Amino acid sequence: MNQRTRVRSLGIEIGRYKTGAYNAITDVGGVRVGHRTIIEDGASGTARTGVTVIQPNEDIYQERLFAGGAVINGAGELTGMIQIWEWGVLETPIALTNTMNVGNVADGMIEYMVERYPALGRINDVVIPVVGECNDSTLNDPRRRFVKPWHVVDALKNATTGEVAEGAVGGGTGMCSFDFKGGIGTSSRVVPDGYTVGVLVMSNFGDRVNLMVKGAPVGRHITDLMPEEHAEGSIIVVLATDAPLLPHQLNRLARRAALGLGRVGSFATHGSGEIVVSFSTANTIPRDMPSPVAKYRMLSDERLNPLFEATVEAVEEAVLNALFMAETMVGRNGNIVHALPIERTLNIIDEYGARGRCL
Amino acid sequence: MNQRTRVRSLGIEIGRYKTGAYNAITDVGGVRVGHRTIIEDGASGTARTGVTVIQPNEDIYQERLFAGGAVINGAGELTGMIQIWEWGVLETPIALTNTMNVGNVADGMIEYMVERYPALGRINDVVIPVVGECNDSTLNDPRRRFVKPWHVVDALKNATTGEVAEGAVGGGTGMCSFDFKGGIGTSSRVVPDGYTVGVLVMSNFGDRVNLMVKGAPVGRHITDLMPEEHAEGSIIVVLATDAPLLPHQLNRLARRAALGLGRVGSFATHGSGEIVVSFSTANTIPRDMPSPVAKYRMLSDERLNPLFEATVEAVEEAVLNALFMAETMVGRNGNIVHALPIERTLNIIDEYGARGRCL
Amino acid sequence: MNQRTRVRSLGIEIGRYKTGAYNAITDVGGVRVGHRTIIEDGASGTARTGVTVIQPNEDIYQERLFAGGAVINGAGELTGMIQIWEWGVLETPIALTNTMNVGNVADGMIEYMVERYPALGRINDVVIPVVGECNDSTLNDPRRRFVKPWHVVDALKNATTGEVAEGAVGGGTGMCSFDFKGGIGTSSRVVPDGYTVGVLVMSNFGDRVNLMVKGAPVGRHITDLMPEEHAEGSIIVVLATDAPLLPHQLNRLARRAALGLGRVGSFATHGSGEIVVSFSTANTIPRDMPSPVAKYRMLSDERLNPLFEATVEAVEEAVLNALFMAETMVGRNGNIVHALPIERTLNIIDEYGARGRCL
Amino acid sequence: MNQRTRVRSLGIEIGRYKTGAYNAITDVGGVRVGHRTIIEDGASGTARTGVTVIQPNEDIYQERLFAGGAVINGAGELTGMIQIWEWGVLETPIALTNTMNVGNVADGMIEYMVERYPALGRINDVVIPVVGECNDSTLNDPRRRFVKPWHVVDALKNATTGEVAEGAVGGGTGMCSFDFKGGIGTSSRVVPDGYTVGVLVMSNFGDRVNLMVKGAPVGRHITDLMPEEHAEGSIIVVLATDAPLLPHQLNRLARRAALGLGRVGSFATHGSGEIVVSFSTANTIPRDMPSPVAKYRMLSDERLNPLFEATVEAVEEAVLNALFMAETMVGRNGNIVHALPIERTLNIIDEYGARGRCL
Repeated sequence: MNQRTRVRSLGIEIGRYKTGAYNAITDVGGVRVGHRTIIEDGASGTARTGVTVIQPNEDIYQERLFAGGAVINGAGELTGMIQIWEWGVLETPIALTNTMNVGNVADGMIEYMVERYPALGRINDVVIPVVGECNDSTLNDPRRRFVKPWHVVDALKNATTGEVAEGAVGGGTGMCSFDFKGGIGTSSRVVPDGYTVGVLVMSNFGDRVNLMVKGAPVGRHITDLMPEEHAEGSIIVVLATDAPLLPHQLNRLARRAALGLGRVGSFATHGSGEIVVSFSTANTIPRDMPSPVAKYRMLSDERLNPLFEATVEAVEEAVLNALFMAETMVGRNGNIVHALPIERTLNIIDEYGARGRCL
Repeated sequence: MNQRTRVRSLGIEIGRYKTGAYNAITDVGGVRVGHRTIIEDGASGTARTGVTVIQPNEDIYQERLFAGGAVINGAGELTGMIQIWEWGVLETPIALTNTMNVGNVADGMIEYMVERYPALGRINDVVIPVVGECNDSTLNDPRRRFVKPWHVVDALKNATTGEVAEGAVGGGTGMCSFDFKGGIGTSSRVVPDGYTVGVLVMSNFGDRVNLMVKGAPVGRHITDLMPEEHAEGSIIVVLATDAPLLPHQLNRLARRAALGLGRVGSFATHGSGEIVVSFSTANTIPRDMPSPVAKYRMLSDERLNPLFEATVEAVEEAVLNALFMAETMVGRNGNIVHALPIERTLNIIDEYGARGRCL
Repeated sequence: MNQRTRVRSLGIEIGRYKTGAYNAITDVGGVRVGHRTIIEDGASGTARTGVTVIQPNEDIYQERLFAGGAVINGAGELTGMIQIWEWGVLETPIALTNTMNVGNVADGMIEYMVERYPALGRINDVVIPVVGECNDSTLNDPRRRFVKPWHVVDALKNATTGEVAEGAVGGGTGMCSFDFKGGIGTSSRVVPDGYTVGVLVMSNFGDRVNLMVKGAPVGRHITDLMPEEHAEGSIIVVLATDAPLLPHQLNRLARRAALGLGRVGSFATHGSGEIVVSFSTANTIPRDMPSPVAKYRMLSDERLNPLFEATVEAVEEAVLNALFMAETMVGRNGNIVHALPIERTLNIIDEYGARGRCL
Repeated sequence: MNQRTRVRSLGIEIGRYKTGAYNAITDVGGVRVGHRTIIEDGASGTARTGVTVIQPNEDIYQERLFAGGAVINGAGELTGMIQIWEWGVLETPIALTNTMNVGNVADGMIEYMVERYPALGRINDVVIPVVGECNDSTLNDPRRRFVKPWHVVDALKNATTGEVAEGAVGGGTGMCSFDFKGGIGTSSRVVPDGYTVGVLVMSNFGDRVNLMVKGAPVGRHITDLMPEEHAEGSIIVVLATDAPLLPHQLNRLARRAALGLGRVGSFATHGSGEIVVSFSTANTIPRDMPSPVAKYRMLSDERLNPLFEATVEAVEEAVLNALFMAETMVGRNGNIVHALPIERTLNIIDEYGARGRCL
């Protein structure tokens, strides 16, 4: 089976909550995603990389959102996290790229904001961009920093609602996961209260032997199709919700991602940057506060559990979508990273009775 | 099947690493465990509670150990954690009990130490005991604080190496997990480098619907045998290792527990205190340092991964052991909490092909 | 000068904001303070200890408040902090006592709540009390744990608004600070927006040589009146405000305490437990939420600075009040800890031109 | 007095420990500092900015050092901090620049490392650079990002031991502090055990009214010489020591910086990024570990206090050096930021009897 397909369309349902319309982070109203994929072979080296951006709303600089974050294993970077933890506020888009390209991508985000906001850095305060990374050096030549600021500006301007491209696109272009080709994956859940949790991951982590799909030990049954070199990778998780969560609740939501990663087979390796950033679109914190005290809506703590469980489910499914959607890629030094073989995977899953069951 | 038995003796192997001799936290050399179980029905109320203690070595006050910790969800208590995070050192035993009994148990630990160390609080510094808790109020009457200081002293004095009683014993006496009877569980792993990771849990968490055993969605298939009231519980995880880990590495080890809990079906509910404390027996930090600078052994970070994976495996198995070993209990208000029905569970697992497979 | 007096009544004004009516934590409306002082010499040992309690409002269990906290140096204990960080909510009073008495005092808090709330631990959830400590073993015999549960119940029931006793009272009875007698101190500030910040400290920290009073190096000029043994102490800081701060803002407020301690001469010694807990009375979070979503008032971040500065000022003054109000005490083993000699201190301050100046 | 001079050469001694030979971060053996200052007026805007780099040793990529960090107020950025907290290891130099230039400077650090290490990103792992920032937009036009990658490479290659230029140089070129001109400052202390603590700050924080010099309220007496706009700034603190501290001890050292900042007059404003990074040169952790277990030297916790106190002193003095060494600067929009008037400052200090005293 050469055709890539999302895990759910194969009858594999993860968890008990239903998905949003697109089963994507964009099911949270107003959230847009943009990709810029860079695949080149030439004198300047082998490019298998790119950038993925999330626009949390129409104008995150002026209409800031409550935000939070969590670090499961911090061998990675998500710039801006220190400020998010301090203020509980997100005021730039989020970008995902490869490790040594973080500088250029941060500069690209600044370029975009400088262009869009003439008062930025003059009348208004400067900003700190939010840029996460994983290492794609198995397939890409990270020394070249192929992602330039204009790629970021382009991705930000062309971010769209609706369906989200997955697999080897944008920041996920050169990423690997469980020694298969990985990359971008997304998923969403709608909880009984009507709130949506959307997840987008840049999945670049996992040892083959540990891969589980809906509880079936798929990785232990597929011992071939290994890359020449195993790279210890990372994962960046972006969580969006329209539930009215305050910053401390968003930190809590972010921490649940670990539980979903555990279900797919993560043990959070030493070299992994497993970093989560979360935001809620339910309250806006205008840059120019109209009055010194504002009222913000907060979901009662007693109503958090479905959102926590939804997060675990959607993280698990987003990682699987990245695997199921990414195609085999040849990259740097002729390194081949194979796509997850879907038919064989399905056979294993069926052997374990996992498909079509109630889990 | 009325006979309780550990999960592994049913042919259910969790993960790929082998266990230590006892498949218990006591496989880490020098670690001792003591239980004091309190089951009483009388004028003073219904007692289904107790205390479990871990003695990390012969004399933790004089021969302190490096330690760390992590909070997955902090709706709970583990006294002494602030100091462990600050100093990276453990200097008292660890005790586990029910929530409103923490005060008495802390006082019992002090009683034990005052008795054992005549210089404590006079020539030497005072100490802060390490006491973790879960809420057993479905079966126990927590308002009575049945655990008295002398129970703690007794448990500490009678802690032993070797086999560890599991299920409804000690601090685990009244605990529930996945709407079944839970309690104390333990497990261990030996990694290829020869180091052992031992885990002991007081397992009191989980919604029935989410229970997974080796990937099989057992909880969704057993919808009867529910308690009258579902209580949102907690879990305390104690990690011991003989690998030479420094404090910052022990914090990292502790965080891996979340990944194991995710595999059993945790989504870390709002009301759950999911708290982990970890220590290494490899280096000792004497109370009276012989010289201002000491040399400590540290495992290279590049060798951490097997320990991380072993932790995930052993946490998963320890939770299952608590479930498989605990018997049905009747407690406060006549509340019944059923034991996990082992035969039915095995049938489900077999249906999912999980037993005897390579996972 | 034998008469103890608060620092401000000597013409020493700390900072630029005005104080509340009582210059005490009770200037935050609804906050009550209770002390129970235990001074005994007898067969059972030398008692110079006690407990101080803060009732944040009329009924903190039913009408919970947003809360936060910070650890400057964590060689200490404040039970309940893990839950405050997780939930951002305070649901018990706060008690301060000596280190090895934390267990008994926690049990006393439970006793009080069990008595007051018949549904607690039966229909309603159990609670985790908030108890902070410092080590008073220079003057007190900590091995005896003189503070019993009933002392705590008594202090909680008799907590009052208005003036707060300072110095060697309650939990501060046996505490030392800068090698002088220390103990309880309090102070408050009202910021231009009209909000009040109230501080109560149990001050037990400081090396003589570092003591500064309004910038004057008082400690370097008073080299006599030293105790026989220098004990490395701690400080617990309780911050209350009526400003509508959310949990993440209350964590931020708590961290400012460090800056005030720096001004008095703290360098946060290795053995010091410098722990801060903060709460806001402006929003209440009822135990039984009337609806799943509530609106809470939040002060705009841009208005935080005066509250931050007020916190720094009030912490500094509260520590000084503890010193200026505590009298010389003789305790365990005949140890004498001298009161700060006020007249000499004033002479030094005047020499440095600090009194009556604009600082 | 137009001549700028360091605070100590005016007879103002901060604290009780002696300084190293240069009273600079370079007193810690092997530490080198480089500046690249960019002052331009032209069509492309007004540049008053630059970059300052710290080379912790000869080859930090191959001979990594234990490291730690702390955030006092996190409205700022120090890239790489997440990894430092996780691994406790520093593996790149440290660079300081203006906020919106962080991307370019990070890319410059990568450029330097790519050039120096041919295996980086191919055979060896990629790296995450450590770049801290403050906002210099009062004097500089931050929208232009004047600092280019080659400036960073240049500064890194030309970093030197010995004397360190202070004031308006490198990353400090456009920085302001207490509404005076600020910038780079450095200081060091040698403790009785023989260890050195070195501090380098990029000082851009403070409200005039709060400025204290050795306890004298200088800021309240100098109400003129104000800039047209007050900018809420930040401070980045770099701590180096040759004491053998492990990562958790280095986190603790970093937290002491707050106490020094409190003494100068900080209350850590809402918009301030007060971030500290610390490292020890005493142990090296080679990229290629010769054996799986290594022995590292650790200073006994009981010996930490002088290092803590030295840190407080050196941070205070480094901030003052930045103020005393920086000259008046005219920048963007003709904004003038005045130098601290030294003679007036000395008069105030003398009035308060602070100079030449024992503090």
